[in-house]
Amino acid sequence: MELLKETISKITKPDEKAKEEAIKKWDGLLKPIGSLGALEEITIKISAMTGKVINKFDKKAVVVMCSDNGAVEEGISAAPQVFTKILAQSMSKGLTGVATLGKFTNTDIITVNLGIKGHIDDPHILDMKLADGTNNFTKGPAMTYEEAVKSIEKGIEVADQLYSKGYDILGTGEVGIGNTSTAVAVVSSILGLDVDIICGKGAGLTDEQYAHKKEIIKKAISINKVNTDDPIEVISKLGGFDIAGMCGLCLSAAKNKKPIVIDGFISSAAALCASYLNPHVKEYIIPSHLSAEPGAGYVLDELGLKPLLTLEMRLGEGSGCPLAFQIIEAAEYLLENMGTFDDVSMQSSCLIDIRNDRECK
Amino acid sequence: MELLKETISKITKPDEKAKEEAIKKWDGLLKPIGSLGALEEITIKISAMTGKVINKFDKKAVVVMCSDNGAVEEGISAAPQVFTKILAQSMSKGLTGVATLGKFTNTDIITVNLGIKGHIDDPHILDMKLADGTNNFTKGPAMTYEEAVKSIEKGIEVADQLYSKGYDILGTGEVGIGNTSTAVAVVSSILGLDVDIICGKGAGLTDEQYAHKKEIIKKAISINKVNTDDPIEVISKLGGFDIAGMCGLCLSAAKNKKPIVIDGFISSAAALCASYLNPHVKEYIIPSHLSAEPGAGYVLDELGLKPLLTLEMRLGEGSGCPLAFQIIEAAEYLLENMGTFDDVSMQSSCLIDIRNDRECK
Repeated sequence: MELLKETISKITKPDEKAKEEAIKKWDGLLKPIGSLGALEEITIKISAMTGKVINKFDKKAVVVMCSDNGAVEEGISAAPQVFTKILAQSMSKGLTGVATLGKFTNTDIITVNLGIKGHIDDPHILDMKLADGTNNFTKGPAMTYEEAVKSIEKGIEVADQLYSKGYDILGTGEVGIGNTSTAVAVVSSILGLDVDIICGKGAGLTDEQYAHKKEIIKKAISINKVNTDDPIEVISKLGGFDIAGMCGLCLSAAKNKKPIVIDGFISSAAALCASYLNPHVKEYIIPSHLSAEPGAGYVLDELGLKPLLTLEMRLGEGSGCPLAFQIIEAAEYLLENMGTFDDVSMQSSCLIDIRNDRECK
Repeated sequence: MELLKETISKITKPDEKAKEEAIKKWDGLLKPIGSLGALEEITIKISAMTGKVINKFDKKAVVVMCSDNGAVEEGISAAPQVFTKILAQSMSKGLTGVATLGKFTNTDIITVNLGIKGHIDDPHILDMKLADGTNNFTKGPAMTYEEAVKSIEKGIEVADQLYSKGYDILGTGEVGIGNTSTAVAVVSSILGLDVDIICGKGAGLTDEQYAHKKEIIKKAISINKVNTDDPIEVISKLGGFDIAGMCGLCLSAAKNKKPIVIDGFISSAAALCASYLNPHVKEYIIPSHLSAEPGAGYVLDELGLKPLLTLEMRLGEGSGCPLAFQIIEAAEYLLENMGTFDDVSMQSSCLIDIRNDRECK
């Protein structure tokens, strides 16, 4: 609990001065004020996080939190539970979506085992396993309060270590069959939104299975009587180790004054929990894309975050993060390298005429 | 007129067989079917265009059509007319937004003078000038019908030449003070939408100037009595050389079976005209982003196109295209390099168990 408490207490609000300087730099560039929209906004937000106007990201990583969910025995997912293990093991072989995008964008993929069911012996997977998956949340809490704290702290530890190794920007990712259900349960409880509104059909569920999935989530919420004011309790009773771990990543990013890019719906559920632990956290979060999961928009709205991409992706794994890194790096490159009105003034005899709105000779 | 007629007649519908093969390849990759959303859709669309399942883009360019609009004498823009010339000249110096993004994404910027007012002697600008800007469309047609045909044909020529030099993908861009007004006039006429709905405030207009801008556009539409069934007549009476040139780029792309990425609102007005000249054109168009201009969404909806990015950009110049190229290249990389279910089968003894939905030992 010490690491978590300390992390939460060390998170402070972003740097207003650096933010103002970034705005001033953008406004001197050769373009109508504000015309690069979100490209300007992202870099300004990052300047406020880091305290530096220009930010470069030489070391990038997506941290993929992998864990199993006991609730899959209720038949809430089209994919079998063993896929969690198979996908985790496919990460280092470069076979998964996020691993492939990682290669394309020069992003490292850090695969973390927080609670994959069964034995894994793979040097490319960081072993931080807490249990053989969570318990079935329709029969009681998914995990103990202590386990929730520990798994959040695992996320903090991983990110703290990566920052100390020189990583400048991280993304959140997850693998865990059944984790759209845990994310729906967490978001529904925290935001007080009906499961029917935010629960999606996922991949390959029939209408009947979809109806069943919603019933199972409602049952879990009803049985667990969660104190929704405590995000740690919400995670412990209704969440998963992956959501807890990603919550820790967000907390560490805010503490270390680094931008953290979140992927889709499940990542956003973790970001929501982190932001309820310290409201400044959301000022360090950049949402990559608007997931096709129906709950995604509600969470981003609550956090006041606008996604960069609208690609109707619903793969998870952190697959939106490398794509967002590309945009963020392009935006920083613009801020650093675009011409200014002064450049034009030096290279043209027209500037006085321009400012007076007269014809240039 | 020959080149235009021939180009329109040579445009055929995309290749259904390559499309089916691309879908089949995506469906064999290690992910739920369809879960990479628009990333899958773009590459499938491109496969249909080129007839090849995998497409690589080693030579990329944004073609920036530059021209002036006579209507600026009515006070419809916050920026003085001479900015068209200054921005065109700033392209090769790498000072503009699109030029900077071009450097970042390894994209060439081809600057074309279709009708910039005044003398320009710059070896980096392709001189295809038709006139010293268009005429003021509140006093009669912006250009003659012949000029409209010629400027569309200039666009076809430029793109045809670039494809013959080995460019695989082009983007459309423009520079032309006053061209949001011409684009609104063109779109309003073709789609029968009220100017008040699709006209934006642009950069730096006061409420009074904004109201004035809308009045000027309405006056132009009312005076010119356009046959809205003929996109060439619409362009000639209400458009600009830049819109015509970009229309030509879209036509050439479709003829040459290459993807063409369009930027924001003004580019989309040109794409709309091209698609009315041959309905298959829209099957070769990829929209980069949803511009902050209010008319942009209406045009994309009419064309049945979904933007990849929602960055609230309104710079123009083609600045959305290099960002879209990044996403398209990432999508193609995924299609080519992501692991398959067969890869997992070979590397795991679990596959039979997975397919039977049983626990892996």
